[in-house]
Amino acid sequence: MPEPRIHGREFVRTFFTTPTAEKGVEDSAKKLRKAIELRGMQAPDVWVPDNEDATAPNMRDEGAQNIAEVVAEGGAEFPGEIHPRVVWHRNDPEARYKGLQHMLEIADPDKGAVENIDGFVIPEVGDIDDWKKADEFITIVENEYGLEEGSLNMSVIIESGQAELAMGELRDEMGKPTNNLERLFLLVDGEVDYTKDMRAITPTGALPEWKELRHNTSRGASAAGLIAVDGPYDDIRDVDGYRQRITENSAMGMNGIWSLTPGQVEVANKEPLPPQEGSWLIDADGREVELTDEGDVQVYEGDRVSLEETDDGYVLTVGNDEQTLDEDELKQELVDLTSYVPSMDDIVDSMEEFEAAKEAGKGAIAMTRATTVRIDGVEVDIQSDRMWDEATYQALMTPVKLFKDVYENRPDQHEELAELYSEDVVERAMEVGE
Amino acid sequence: MPEPRIHGREFVRTFFTTPTAEKGVEDSAKKLRKAIELRGMQAPDVWVPDNEDATAPNMRDEGAQNIAEVVAEGGAEFPGEIHPRVVWHRNDPEARYKGLQHMLEIADPDKGAVENIDGFVIPEVGDIDDWKKADEFITIVENEYGLEEGSLNMSVIIESGQAELAMGELRDEMGKPTNNLERLFLLVDGEVDYTKDMRAITPTGALPEWKELRHNTSRGASAAGLIAVDGPYDDIRDVDGYRQRITENSAMGMNGIWSLTPGQVEVANKEPLPPQEGSWLIDADGREVELTDEGDVQVYEGDRVSLEETDDGYVLTVGNDEQTLDEDELKQELVDLTSYVPSMDDIVDSMEEFEAAKEAGKGAIAMTRATTVRIDGVEVDIQSDRMWDEATYQALMTPVKLFKDVYENRPDQHEELAELYSEDVVERAMEVGE
Amino acid sequence: MPEPRIHGREFVRTFFTTPTAEKGVEDSAKKLRKAIELRGMQAPDVWVPDNEDATAPNMRDEGAQNIAEVVAEGGAEFPGEIHPRVVWHRNDPEARYKGLQHMLEIADPDKGAVENIDGFVIPEVGDIDDWKKADEFITIVENEYGLEEGSLNMSVIIESGQAELAMGELRDEMGKPTNNLERLFLLVDGEVDYTKDMRAITPTGALPEWKELRHNTSRGASAAGLIAVDGPYDDIRDVDGYRQRITENSAMGMNGIWSLTPGQVEVANKEPLPPQEGSWLIDADGREVELTDEGDVQVYEGDRVSLEETDDGYVLTVGNDEQTLDEDELKQELVDLTSYVPSMDDIVDSMEEFEAAKEAGKGAIAMTRATTVRIDGVEVDIQSDRMWDEATYQALMTPVKLFKDVYENRPDQHEELAELYSEDVVERAMEVGE
Repeated sequence: MPEPRIHGREFVRTFFTTPTAEKGVEDSAKKLRKAIELRGMQAPDVWVPDNEDATAPNMRDEGAQNIAEVVAEGGAEFPGEIHPRVVWHRNDPEARYKGLQHMLEIADPDKGAVENIDGFVIPEVGDIDDWKKADEFITIVENEYGLEEGSLNMSVIIESGQAELAMGELRDEMGKPTNNLERLFLLVDGEVDYTKDMRAITPTGALPEWKELRHNTSRGASAAGLIAVDGPYDDIRDVDGYRQRITENSAMGMNGIWSLTPGQVEVANKEPLPPQEGSWLIDADGREVELTDEGDVQVYEGDRVSLEETDDGYVLTVGNDEQTLDEDELKQELVDLTSYVPSMDDIVDSMEEFEAAKEAGKGAIAMTRATTVRIDGVEVDIQSDRMWDEATYQALMTPVKLFKDVYENRPDQHEELAELYSEDVVERAMEVGE
Repeated sequence: MPEPRIHGREFVRTFFTTPTAEKGVEDSAKKLRKAIELRGMQAPDVWVPDNEDATAPNMRDEGAQNIAEVVAEGGAEFPGEIHPRVVWHRNDPEARYKGLQHMLEIADPDKGAVENIDGFVIPEVGDIDDWKKADEFITIVENEYGLEEGSLNMSVIIESGQAELAMGELRDEMGKPTNNLERLFLLVDGEVDYTKDMRAITPTGALPEWKELRHNTSRGASAAGLIAVDGPYDDIRDVDGYRQRITENSAMGMNGIWSLTPGQVEVANKEPLPPQEGSWLIDADGREVELTDEGDVQVYEGDRVSLEETDDGYVLTVGNDEQTLDEDELKQELVDLTSYVPSMDDIVDSMEEFEAAKEAGKGAIAMTRATTVRIDGVEVDIQSDRMWDEATYQALMTPVKLFKDVYENRPDQHEELAELYSEDVVERAMEVGE
Repeated sequence: MPEPRIHGREFVRTFFTTPTAEKGVEDSAKKLRKAIELRGMQAPDVWVPDNEDATAPNMRDEGAQNIAEVVAEGGAEFPGEIHPRVVWHRNDPEARYKGLQHMLEIADPDKGAVENIDGFVIPEVGDIDDWKKADEFITIVENEYGLEEGSLNMSVIIESGQAELAMGELRDEMGKPTNNLERLFLLVDGEVDYTKDMRAITPTGALPEWKELRHNTSRGASAAGLIAVDGPYDDIRDVDGYRQRITENSAMGMNGIWSLTPGQVEVANKEPLPPQEGSWLIDADGREVELTDEGDVQVYEGDRVSLEETDDGYVLTVGNDEQTLDEDELKQELVDLTSYVPSMDDIVDSMEEFEAAKEAGKGAIAMTRATTVRIDGVEVDIQSDRMWDEATYQALMTPVKLFKDVYENRPDQHEELAELYSEDVVERAMEVGE
């Protein structure tokens, strides 16, 4: 009984923005032309020709024309969805009217782009009545051009306290006869403008983490059948930081993120997928360190954790903390310190094991993880159990569902997926839970 | 002016679930029969015969019969409240209708159980209109069997973003003429299904912490006069982790927790009560360590903090940080590093002291904590004050109120409470604040 | 397009409470008389003669008279706004009626105080309908005395789950024809009573952090054009802790805090302003340490980080972690470990640089920070870039806006501001962004 999603994509990993028009270059649409050629892991799930912040104000009329032209030419072959961002502001009717004009320009059937435009992205929305104004303009565009009402999606950038609160009202508002808010698709956080709107100050000017905003966006998406996407990660060279942000977001149920470059797209397309190889981690005095896989044994090679066998038992030292332990205590301590990151293969194995147990009439089974850990030459066998019931099975199915959604919607990534995993694993993943 | 609670219990420490029917054993109701015999600290405040996730789908009809039979036999003697969980799902009318049928089965007066059924637990609720559907079915059950409307409580499992949002609307909805939502009792988090509903992914498959959910559940309970309960803690052997979760929950105002075993019930029944003995803690480089009580002196015996007296003053080392301090600076530093966990006796003393000051016409008084700390043989007298006013007094009364609620509602625990505390402390605690 | 604020002050740094009447002293209004004489950095932005918790219940009638008398005498010269707190409780009609009587007493034009009373502070509010009751009483006071409806502000103390939820409804309720909720001004957290209302328990009795409450208060203020203020910081001697709380609050957009003493007022008036001198920080194994500015070089003088040049490159040790790095890796590592806290002067420089770029037709520019860091005698040049666009510019303008708001509204602080910064910096700050 999953919540029904109302759109083709169940998941969106990547939201990639491109300036629509640049001054002082021969072809003002050059960046758009380059972006629409992206394929495979470098192509985003959602591509956003950005006729708002990424484009200078006085270039936006030209930008709207560029979008229509470039999408008319290359949109049919683009492997992701296309959702241009137009101008909008809850406090500025001029910006809103300009947004309508740009949507009319982009969606004009005479330009030949509209069949490959999946929707529009509306920034700077305010309370729910402001969202309805944008929805109404899209309805007008649809009506003007003979498109079905609701056929163009609407995604919003959450970058104000008002919009954060509005996400709590979506279930009450979507489905009312006087709007078409069922067209809603993505809820995208915009942390820089949100910081301005909240009037937050940090000593270094760094962005606050805004964990509550991200939780509320993820929850809003969950409650209304939409998809949550995090905002831009400015430090483009910091790939580790970007990965870490994606992992943190996923743990909140926010499975997509903004990408500013094809390099970021590639990272963010791959990161949410389960790894090819499982790995053991150890909490080495506050830092997660991967153990070295030597086949049957997992080896800790750092110097933050040390282990010595003595006449009475063992001495385990983590950072500055020394503990004298007997064998059982040592095993328990190592179970607590270690964790296992399952591979796609492992996940599918577990799913199949639980399904078999269910067929055999069991409601809950214990899943066992066992290995041998070696620290400073001392080897210890450890083992832990986890009880799985239907809810555990469902909850741990999410990464598999994400994989299936990608596989079904992005044929251009099949080759890279088959390289990442073996053909066999891909096949089993596509079948499990069906 | 506390918020009025609308039910007999002001606090619920423990919510213990038991499968209702198992296949392939002689007596399918064996676990129910065993659970209803629990007494004292092993008996929960709320017992939940679980005719949903803990019981295999094809055993649930028999489970409903088992509940009626077992509660008819042993319900009158059971010291806690009894709230069976029935099937329900916001997206599945079949599950909802099945839930109605099971409630009709369990509450049928001919079965003899209903006078000891305090209410029902409804899982997988969605938005507030979905809660009303469940409420309506309970009204129908009451009406069918000549019970007073609202006499059966309703507790819900919060395991979706929709339900999390619905908790913000309870004050607007309870008391409306077309529902009986005043029957609401517990708001119980269900983190595994919530993780599924939010589509959250963690690398190891571990549950996210969901702090915002727990805050919002506690707040929802506070605003609507209900009681907040945290979800199951899967790692049954990890007693320290379970205790820590309870402490963390209490700091959010979530004073109850799910228990999966009588052992967990015992831990969770005792943990929220103030300790018998007070203790001093020191923050030893990021870790809270208890000082050893040697009567007049509190001794630090580890090696994360060291102290040396020199010709010019003192050298205090915490982890890798060495500070040279004069006596006043040292005292201040130790005041900052230490804290005191008051015993029940201490709490009652402070309450009485403030009450006496109030009678003498003072609005605020300074409460002093003083002791001597010994580190590496060097003794230092430290002292700190805290201003108490009426609000402080009220806020710190919560653990005493919890104790009173337990004492009044759980005579079967009197003996164990008298063993934990002295008779004298129990008596004073029952009188303070009255 | 900033959110419009509906009051004279855009920012409120300080909310200073004073008891209104004390028993057993010659002049029961002595503390009020002393407080109203405060000027400059010791005078708060908002002064709150506190006729609720700070004053004994049987002294509050006299307290109301004292407020009227003292404000009549000295209110015109007081440099901040004056908002007395009266009694109120969502669960107690007697307290609410008493609150009305005290407001009628204080605002009586015959007493001569009302022209210097800017509004009232209402504690212990509940859901939004309870806020409306207080609003209605203020309307009655205004009407009774021929004041314009809405001319008296209303600030509330958020100290219940109900009130926390009510902040989500302000945009729907303000502006309705049957209330004057546009008079709302400050949303002030009251964590002690909130802790009671949430029934939270901590082992030592320390207050929970209540981060979610503070986020929600800041968001509520942002959405409704109001100002968020944090509650009292009890440990008056702990100036560092108070500063840290202010910094943490600012990062949530909560730019004001309660002050219990003129000393706290002074700290809280200065802390949110950008520093006079910029400084470099290094993350020394989990602790932020300021580098010593030796002109061209920033020197690390502690022993948590060490650096050695070897034949193959460098060895950088942070805490227990040793890394062997080449020059580029070292530079990148130091860029990651360090950060820069800009001075007011630096901030104005950056603003002007971006404005110039904008005029030259650029939408985004890279801002560079460069310095030389010296650790253990080894010097390394580091440099990092940050992309600025319009949103970055707007978000980083907040401290400048705060400065301007202070400068415009608090002429009594001009001298101290000119001492903190140079006249020249003050002048440039007042001009940037206009």
